[in-house]
Amino acid sequence: MRMSLEEATRLADSLWYRHTDSTVIAVVQDASDKEVLMVGSMNREAVIKTLTTGLLHLYSLSRKRLWMKGETSGHIHEVVEVRVDCDNDALIVKVRPHGPTCHTGNRSCFYRTAEEVVQGKT
Amino acid sequence: MRMSLEEATRLADSLWYRHTDSTVIAVVQDASDKEVLMVGSMNREAVIKTLTTGLLHLYSLSRKRLWMKGETSGHIHEVVEVRVDCDNDALIVKVRPHGPTCHTGNRSCFYRTAEEVVQGKT
Repeated sequence: MRMSLEEATRLADSLWYRHTDSTVIAVVQDASDKEVLMVGSMNREAVIKTLTTGLLHLYSLSRKRLWMKGETSGHIHEVVEVRVDCDNDALIVKVRPHGPTCHTGNRSCFYRTAEEVVQGKT
Repeated sequence: MRMSLEEATRLADSLWYRHTDSTVIAVVQDASDKEVLMVGSMNREAVIKTLTTGLLHLYSLSRKRLWMKGETSGHIHEVVEVRVDCDNDALIVKVRPHGPTCHTGNRSCFYRTAEEVVQGKT
Protein backbone atom coordinates (compact mmCIF):
# COMPACT_ATOMS: atom_id res chain seq x y z
CA MET A 1 0.00 0.00 0.00
CA ARG A 2 1.35 3.43 -1.00
CA MET A 3 -0.07 6.92 -1.13
CA SER A 4 0.93 10.04 -3.04
CA LEU A 5 2.75 12.71 -1.06
CA GLU A 6 -0.38 14.87 -1.24
CA GLU A 7 -2.62 12.14 0.22
CA ALA A 8 -0.03 11.18 2.84
CA THR A 9 0.28 14.82 3.91
CA ARG A 10 -3.49 15.12 4.20
CA LEU A 11 -3.57 12.01 6.41
CA ALA A 12 -0.61 13.20 8.49
CA ASP A 13 -2.26 16.59 9.01
CA SER A 14 -5.45 14.98 10.32
CA LEU A 15 -3.69 13.15 13.18
CA TRP A 16 -3.38 14.27 16.80
CA TYR A 17 0.28 14.01 17.87
CA ARG A 18 -0.58 14.00 21.55
CA HIS A 19 1.97 11.44 22.75
CA THR A 20 5.62 11.88 23.84
CA ASP A 21 7.73 13.99 21.43
CA SER A 22 4.63 14.82 19.33
CA THR A 23 3.90 11.31 18.15
CA VAL A 24 0.99 8.97 17.52
CA ILE A 25 1.04 5.34 18.68
CA ALA A 26 1.57 2.74 15.94
CA VAL A 27 0.36 -0.82 16.53
CA VAL A 28 2.15 -3.07 14.05
CA GLN A 29 0.06 -6.12 13.20
CA ASP A 30 0.86 -9.04 10.87
CA ALA A 31 -1.53 -8.78 7.91
CA SER A 32 -1.58 -12.56 7.49
CA ASP A 33 -2.88 -13.66 10.91
CA LYS A 34 -3.46 -10.45 12.94
CA GLU A 35 -0.67 -11.20 15.43
CA VAL A 36 0.42 -7.94 17.12
CA LEU A 37 4.16 -7.69 16.45
CA MET A 38 5.20 -4.47 18.19
CA VAL A 39 4.07 -1.05 19.40
CA GLY A 40 6.03 2.00 18.28
CA SER A 41 5.77 5.76 17.90
CA MET A 42 5.42 7.83 14.74
CA ASN A 43 5.97 11.55 14.37
CA ARG A 44 4.57 13.40 11.35
CA GLU A 45 7.64 12.58 9.26
CA ALA A 46 7.42 8.84 10.06
CA VAL A 47 3.74 8.81 9.06
CA ILE A 48 4.49 10.44 5.71
CA LYS A 49 7.53 8.21 5.01
CA THR A 50 5.53 5.07 5.84
CA LEU A 51 2.62 6.04 3.59
CA THR A 52 4.69 7.24 0.62
CA THR A 53 7.26 4.41 0.58
CA GLY A 54 5.00 1.54 1.67
CA LEU A 55 7.67 0.51 4.20
CA LEU A 56 7.30 0.84 7.98
CA HIS A 57 9.10 3.87 9.44
CA LEU A 58 9.02 4.80 13.13
CA TYR A 59 10.28 7.53 15.45
CA SER A 60 12.58 6.20 18.15
CA LEU A 61 11.83 7.80 21.55
CA SER A 62 15.21 6.58 22.84
CA ARG A 63 17.40 7.69 19.93
CA LYS A 64 15.24 10.73 19.08
CA ARG A 65 15.28 10.04 15.38
CA LEU A 66 13.35 8.58 12.45
CA TRP A 67 14.26 5.03 11.48
CA MET A 68 13.11 2.48 8.94
CA LYS A 69 12.25 -0.95 10.32
CA GLY A 70 14.93 -3.27 8.91
CA GLU A 71 17.45 -0.53 8.13
CA THR A 72 20.18 -2.52 9.91
CA SER A 73 18.70 -6.06 10.12
CA GLY A 74 17.35 -6.11 6.57
CA HIS A 75 13.99 -7.22 7.98
CA ILE A 76 11.91 -4.55 6.31
CA HIS A 77 8.15 -4.49 6.94
CA GLU A 78 5.94 -3.93 3.88
CA VAL A 79 2.76 -1.99 4.63
CA VAL A 80 -0.46 -3.66 3.54
CA GLU A 81 -3.04 -1.42 5.24
CA VAL A 82 -3.18 1.52 7.68
CA ARG A 83 -6.16 2.19 9.94
CA VAL A 84 -6.85 5.23 12.15
CA ASP A 85 -8.63 5.30 15.51
CA CYS A 86 -11.58 7.47 16.50
CA ASP A 87 -9.56 10.23 18.19
CA ASN A 88 -6.76 10.25 15.59
CA ASP A 89 -3.92 9.53 18.03
CA ALA A 90 -3.22 5.89 17.14
CA LEU A 91 -2.72 3.84 13.97
CA ILE A 92 -2.82 0.16 13.13
CA VAL A 93 -0.21 -0.67 10.51
CA LYS A 94 -0.83 -4.07 8.94
CA VAL A 95 2.41 -5.42 7.54
CA ARG A 96 4.14 -8.24 5.72
CA PRO A 97 7.39 -8.62 7.73
CA HIS A 98 10.57 -9.86 6.03
CA GLY A 99 11.89 -11.50 9.22
CA PRO A 100 11.35 -11.33 12.98
CA THR A 101 10.06 -8.00 14.29
CA CYS A 102 11.69 -8.14 17.73
CA HIS A 103 15.39 -7.38 18.23
CA THR A 104 15.54 -10.53 20.42
CA GLY A 105 14.85 -12.67 17.34
CA ASN A 106 11.31 -13.45 18.46
CA ARG A 107 8.62 -13.00 15.86
CA SER A 108 6.74 -10.53 18.11
CA CYS A 109 7.95 -8.20 20.85
CA PHE A 110 5.06 -9.55 22.96
CA TYR A 111 6.62 -12.99 23.44
CA ARG A 112 6.00 -13.11 27.22
CA THR A 113 2.74 -13.50 29.13
CA ALA A 114 2.18 -11.50 32.31
CA GLU A 115 2.57 -14.75 34.30
CA GLU A 116 5.98 -15.38 32.72
CA VAL A 117 7.11 -11.84 33.58
CA VAL A 118 5.99 -12.36 37.21
CA GLN A 119 8.04 -15.57 37.23
CA GLY A 120 11.09 -13.58 36.09
CA LYS A 121 11.31 -14.48 32.38
CA THR A 122 13.25 -11.84 30.42
CA MET B 1 -7.69 -14.18 33.99
CA ARG B 2 -6.94 -12.78 37.47
CA MET B 3 -3.84 -12.44 39.59
CA SER B 4 -3.31 -12.03 43.31
CA LEU B 5 -2.42 -8.53 44.53
CA GLU B 6 1.12 -9.75 45.18
CA GLU B 7 1.58 -11.06 41.64
CA ALA B 8 -0.09 -8.01 40.08
CA THR B 9 2.19 -5.71 42.09
CA ARG B 10 5.24 -7.66 40.96
CA LEU B 11 4.13 -7.30 37.31
CA ALA B 12 3.30 -3.60 37.76
CA ASP B 13 6.72 -2.95 39.32
CA SER B 14 8.50 -4.56 36.36
CA LEU B 15 7.00 -2.15 33.81
CA TRP B 16 8.57 1.01 32.38
CA TYR B 17 6.05 3.88 32.67
CA ARG B 18 7.81 5.95 30.03
CA HIS B 19 4.75 7.36 28.27
CA THR B 20 2.66 10.48 29.00
CA ASP B 21 1.63 10.86 32.68
CA SER B 22 3.77 7.81 33.66
CA THR B 23 1.83 5.23 31.69
CA VAL B 24 2.38 2.16 29.53
CA ILE B 25 0.51 1.67 26.23
CA ALA B 26 -2.30 -0.92 26.30
CA VAL B 27 -3.35 -2.55 23.03
CA VAL B 28 -6.79 -4.07 23.58
CA GLN B 29 -7.34 -7.07 21.32
CA ASP B 30 -10.39 -9.31 20.96
CA ALA B 31 -9.39 -12.74 22.28
CA SER B 32 -11.76 -14.49 19.86
CA ASP B 33 -10.39 -13.26 16.51
CA LYS B 34 -7.41 -10.99 17.30
CA GLU B 35 -9.14 -7.81 16.07
CA VAL B 36 -7.49 -4.75 17.64
CA LEU B 37 -10.30 -2.89 19.40
CA MET B 38 -8.59 0.15 20.90
CA VAL B 39 -5.34 1.61 22.20
CA GLY B 40 -5.29 3.15 25.66
CA SER B 41 -2.97 4.11 28.48
CA MET B 42 -2.44 2.44 31.85
CA ASN B 43 -0.73 3.89 34.89
CA ARG B 44 0.48 1.60 37.69
CA GLU B 45 -2.92 1.67 39.38
CA ALA B 46 -4.76 0.71 36.16
CA VAL B 47 -2.37 -2.23 35.64
CA ILE B 48 -2.98 -3.54 39.16
CA LYS B 49 -6.78 -3.04 38.96
CA THR B 50 -6.94 -4.83 35.59
CA LEU B 51 -4.91 -7.79 36.81
CA THR B 52 -6.62 -8.22 40.18
CA THR B 53 -10.23 -7.76 39.00
CA GLY B 54 -9.95 -9.40 35.56
CA LEU B 55 -11.76 -6.39 34.08
CA LEU B 56 -10.12 -3.82 31.80
CA HIS B 57 -9.18 -0.59 33.55
CA LEU B 58 -7.42 2.34 31.85
CA TYR B 59 -6.00 5.74 32.70
CA SER B 60 -7.65 8.56 30.76
CA LEU B 61 -5.07 11.08 29.49
CA SER B 62 -7.90 13.58 28.85
CA ARG B 63 -9.73 13.25 32.16
CA LYS B 64 -6.59 12.48 34.18
CA ARG B 65 -8.20 9.63 36.05
CA LEU B 66 -8.55 5.86 36.29
CA TRP B 67 -11.65 4.39 34.69
CA MET B 68 -13.12 0.96 34.13
CA LYS B 69 -14.11 0.14 30.56
CA GLY B 70 -17.90 -0.12 30.64
CA GLU B 71 -18.38 1.86 33.86
CA THR B 72 -21.03 4.03 32.14
CA SER B 73 -22.01 1.97 29.06
CA GLY B 74 -22.13 -1.37 30.87
CA HIS B 75 -19.90 -2.82 28.15
CA ILE B 76 -17.26 -4.24 30.47
CA HIS B 77 -14.26 -6.03 28.94
CA GLU B 78 -13.24 -9.31 30.59
CA VAL B 79 -9.50 -9.96 30.50
CA VAL B 80 -8.45 -13.30 29.01
CA GLU B 81 -4.69 -12.79 28.72
CA VAL B 82 -2.07 -10.07 29.22
CA ARG B 83 1.23 -10.00 27.33
CA VAL B 84 4.25 -7.72 27.89
CA ASP B 85 6.64 -6.39 25.24
CA CYS B 86 10.43 -6.65 25.23
CA ASP B 87 11.11 -3.22 26.73
CA ASN B 88 8.24 -3.36 29.25
CA ASP B 89 6.47 -0.20 28.09
CA ALA B 90 3.50 -1.77 26.29
CA LEU B 91 0.92 -4.48 27.01
CA ILE B 92 -1.47 -6.50 24.91
CA VAL B 93 -4.71 -7.10 26.79
CA LYS B 94 -6.77 -9.86 25.18
CA VAL B 95 -10.39 -9.40 26.12
CA ARG B 96 -13.93 -10.70 25.82
CA PRO B 97 -15.93 -7.47 25.27
CA HIS B 98 -19.56 -7.22 26.47
CA GLY B 99 -20.52 -4.80 23.67
CA PRO B 100 -18.86 -2.38 21.24
CA THR B 101 -15.51 -1.00 22.38
CA CYS B 102 -15.73 2.38 20.60
CA HIS B 103 -17.84 5.23 21.96
CA THR B 104 -19.18 5.68 18.38
CA GLY B 105 -20.88 2.30 18.60
CA ASN B 106 -18.41 0.68 16.24
CA ARG B 107 -16.95 -2.62 17.39
CA SER B 108 -13.40 -1.24 17.12
CA CYS B 109 -12.04 2.32 17.42
CA PHE B 110 -10.07 1.57 14.23
CA TYR B 111 -13.14 1.58 11.97
CA ARG B 112 -11.57 3.83 9.28
CA THR B 113 -8.82 3.06 6.80
CA ALA B 114 -6.20 5.73 6.01
CA GLU B 115 -7.83 6.15 2.58
CA GLU B 116 -11.21 6.85 4.19
CA VAL B 117 -9.67 9.47 6.50
CA VAL B 118 -8.02 11.16 3.48
CA GLN B 119 -11.46 11.23 1.83
CA GLY B 120 -12.88 12.97 4.90
CA LYS B 121 -14.72 10.15 6.68
CA THR B 122 -15.18 10.93 10.38
